Amino acid sequence: MANEEEEEEVVLLDFWASPFGMRARIALAEKGIQYQHREEDLGNKTDLLLKMNPVHKQIPVLIHKGKPVCESVVVVQYIDETWPHKSPLLPPHPYQRATARFWAHFVDNKICSLESRKVWTTKGEEQEAAKKEFIQSLKLLEGELGNKAYFGGENLGYVDVVLVPMYSWFYTYEKCGNFSIETDCPKLMAWAKRCLERESVSQSLPDQEKIYEYALHLKKVFGFE
Amino acid sequence: MANEEEEEEVVLLDFWASPFGMRARIALAEKGIQYQHREEDLGNKTDLLLKMNPVHKQIPVLIHKGKPVCESVVVVQYIDETWPHKSPLLPPHPYQRATARFWAHFVDNKICSLESRKVWTTKGEEQEAAKKEFIQSLKLLEGELGNKAYFGGENLGYVDVVLVPMYSWFYTYEKCGNFSIETDCPKLMAWAKRCLERESVSQSLPDQEKIYEYALHLKKVFGFE
Repeated sequence: MANEEEEEEVVLLDFWASPFGMRARIALAEKGIQYQHREEDLGNKTDLLLKMNPVHKQIPVLIHKGKPVCESVVVVQYIDETWPHKSPLLPPHPYQRATARFWAHFVDNKICSLESRKVWTTKGEEQEAAKKEFIQSLKLLEGELGNKAYFGGENLGYVDVVLVPMYSWFYTYEKCGNFSIETDCPKLMAWAKRCLERESVSQSLPDQEKIYEYALHLKKVFGFE
Repeated sequence: MANEEEEEEVVLLDFWASPFGMRARIALAEKGIQYQHREEDLGNKTDLLLKMNPVHKQIPVLIHKGKPVCESVVVVQYIDETWPHKSPLLPPHPYQRATARFWAHFVDNKICSLESRKVWTTKGEEQEAAKKEFIQSLKLLEGELGNKAYFGGENLGYVDVVLVPMYSWFYTYEKCGNFSIETDCPKLMAWAKRCLERESVSQSLPDQEKIYEYALHLKKVFGFE
């Protein structure tokens, strides 16, 4: 029945350059879920987005059977719990789950944060301070990764899905901040490249150069310089 | 064996006035877990705290079998997953869980936030703007509560545990901000009082007047006025 089909469908309201949107894309790809991808124009949001996320009016929104799930970390956990039989993202033991949630929180507060954005939106002392903190945070993540293939261990896990989208922005951070993440965090860069060997990641992350062009455009429009 | 006992023990590193610490206290009380409570002096943190939470150096830290769990929402979820047989906090269905996590996120970003703190740490226009946003956020929460007894439905749930500690700070917000939360959000205040009828909550929240005195002390020490 058409109606049933409609109710079963999965829709993702997304924006190509958003690391938060990329998290949802990777999680859905890891689970092998077919979905309808709808690109939003953030300067002119659709009525659907405003209706589905009236509190924050932000992407990503995952619409499943007509019902919205908002906030990227909530979306990724929802995807993991709704389709648990393939590519588990959160580990099974409560202590491991707590550790994964702790580091996902850390990524949101230190890496995908307004504070870290200052690496490419500011200059001078403000930029230097933001760079220093950004690198320190990446080093802490590198320490947590240790000698594991992924944060999730042998397989891509929750923290990997939450962090790896920022790889698409690293080039922008490096070009605008005039530094090399590879120099400070070679193991973390090797991890990012390992992630990119997976189709779920490579198909979900835009080209770094394209992100850089977009960032330069934003800098002009919002007068960041 | 003494050793085994030690390894089984639950320790909470806490600070009496912290709404984040209160979350852990309520969750442990709901589950009926015996634990050792260790009050931290935030101006002179113990070596144990620095060792157990080297990344953030903040309370609450739950130490279970010698291993630390940090970040209050992570701690509450860990408690719920480790002792699932009594007072479940997260609901069973993935969609309900996503909804609870969404609102917990909202509480962290809008109610227990540095931004909302401006209601009692600033004056004039800055304070008015913070008050307006704080009340708007409380109203959104009141809308989500609807006619339910608790955010968790018939029973205290994850969002209740995350939000209700702020009740102990409401008097400080009202006195410093010169407004009444009851006037704007009568249903939310009724909910808070309903929560306080539970021993798990009433035993975990300090007196509002004591918090107010502490807030006045902070204002003096940090020159908030």
